[in-house]
Amino acid sequence: MSAVPVSDVHAYLTGLQDNIVQALEQAGGESFRTDTWQRPEGGGGVSRLIEGGQLLERAGVLFSHVHGTRLPPSASAHRPELAGRSWQAMGVSLVLHPRNPYVPTTHMNVRMFVAAARPGHDENDVFWFGGGLDLTPYYAFEDDARHFHQVCRAALDPHGAAYYPQYKRWCDEYFYLKHRQEMRGVGGVFFDDLNEPGFDASFALLRSVGDAFLPAYLPIVQRRRDTPYTQAQRDFQAYRRGRYVEFNLVFDRGTLFGLQSGGRTESILLSMPPMAQWRYDWQPAAGSPEAALAGFLQPRDWA
Amino acid sequence: MSAVPVSDVHAYLTGLQDNIVQALEQAGGESFRTDTWQRPEGGGGVSRLIEGGQLLERAGVLFSHVHGTRLPPSASAHRPELAGRSWQAMGVSLVLHPRNPYVPTTHMNVRMFVAAARPGHDENDVFWFGGGLDLTPYYAFEDDARHFHQVCRAALDPHGAAYYPQYKRWCDEYFYLKHRQEMRGVGGVFFDDLNEPGFDASFALLRSVGDAFLPAYLPIVQRRRDTPYTQAQRDFQAYRRGRYVEFNLVFDRGTLFGLQSGGRTESILLSMPPMAQWRYDWQPAAGSPEAALAGFLQPRDWA
Repeated sequence: MSAVPVSDVHAYLTGLQDNIVQALEQAGGESFRTDTWQRPEGGGGVSRLIEGGQLLERAGVLFSHVHGTRLPPSASAHRPELAGRSWQAMGVSLVLHPRNPYVPTTHMNVRMFVAAARPGHDENDVFWFGGGLDLTPYYAFEDDARHFHQVCRAALDPHGAAYYPQYKRWCDEYFYLKHRQEMRGVGGVFFDDLNEPGFDASFALLRSVGDAFLPAYLPIVQRRRDTPYTQAQRDFQAYRRGRYVEFNLVFDRGTLFGLQSGGRTESILLSMPPMAQWRYDWQPAAGSPEAALAGFLQPRDWA
Repeated sequence: MSAVPVSDVHAYLTGLQDNIVQALEQAGGESFRTDTWQRPEGGGGVSRLIEGGQLLERAGVLFSHVHGTRLPPSASAHRPELAGRSWQAMGVSLVLHPRNPYVPTTHMNVRMFVAAARPGHDENDVFWFGGGLDLTPYYAFEDDARHFHQVCRAALDPHGAAYYPQYKRWCDEYFYLKHRQEMRGVGGVFFDDLNEPGFDASFALLRSVGDAFLPAYLPIVQRRRDTPYTQAQRDFQAYRRGRYVEFNLVFDRGTLFGLQSGGRTESILLSMPPMAQWRYDWQPAAGSPEAALAGFLQPRDWA
């Protein structure tokens, strides 16, 4: 029987949340709020967030750690042998919606799930890790997409050359709006159910993904944050934010499962943009910077 | 073998669309656009819509008639004996998002589905009707909710005293945001799978529902359209429109089925508001007009 060192993961995740919030506060010169919550059935979380900021119009960097005494069959449909075990899930999840339309929106998530060995049974704790990071630009800058993917690749290559291509493709497939026939953005990396390399190697990979976020994203912020913009660019940003809403509410498994299973609505929907617009059958003018975005929303090799 | 008089329903529905658009154009003093589209697999539609109007900030009144030669098993899961029949579906669907926050948003839909008898088989055409109308106010005016429901009741009572209570409850249950524990608005009536009274009686009921829309809604428009408002009321409207987005994208079966089955995205998402806002864990001030809305978003007897 081997026990998962949960407290090590807990310490890493809370430290990651702190580091990211601190870096974003420093970049924006504005403080994040803190909202601590308890889950009646066990566990809780700490939401760090900002609304109406100059740099970040709406952003949340969330830590949560929830647990229960009996894993429901619905939560273990593909691993029925785990039903009834005690379980815990912890993770850091962030979505940042910057105000300047030239600064991309981004999302990052790192998480672990553990179903505990039952006392007196000859079995191990079962764990798996998941997560990823991805970028959703409004304007098509090749440098930004390449930089983001290069940092993703550099984070994963030390763990094995197969990871980046595999997780990049997974991300392209996951963040896809079928009804629009386009990706949510330029992708990044996405993975789930990681346990095959064993706990130590899997946790090391998770840390590499979490630690990649700031170097992948902050240089893009610094490069674009002072670009002047007009209401026309803000309107395009609001229109594209509508696609972000569509993906998250129609396709994102975490969002749908959370909303349908009594998850904490305000935390889950902190991924929503501050505002979004819809227009009927709208197309950007041919040759415009807005039209160039479409070329970024199909799978491409960026790194 | 009895054949459904499809052309009668077609004539009623296109006439209803015309009447409603004409009445709304007259009320707003602004013309609707017309967008005609074809469905590659058979059929098409006529979308009448307005965006950026003074009275209606975004609104669509849509007619569609689509058909196919073989009903897919997925579309007839609860009636497996219909798989493989030729089929057609037609309907009028509207969503109106007025600009003035004191004028409620509204939705109406009337539709018919027919699976044709196969030539040489001893069977009948199978049909069913569905539809309804409902009201989503931003500010809580009891007169408006009562008027809307009274017109709904008056439309259904001639067909049988049981219809209004049954369809009112169905509407309360259908337009419910589980994760917010609130209804989308004050409801109205909702029904589906209506065929038991036979074609003539079912079609008559459908017409009563369709014809009820203008008398249910227009008097409310006239009563509220000149109420002065400020940016604070517009912001509350935008916040509440976020709930409309959440319902339609997370819960509405027609929207989800349409988006997942290759339906016409721009028509389906004409139900989206022109813009919506999200704020973290926001609550209106106690005792404010905005706080009063919550009392309208649980099932109540209105008529």
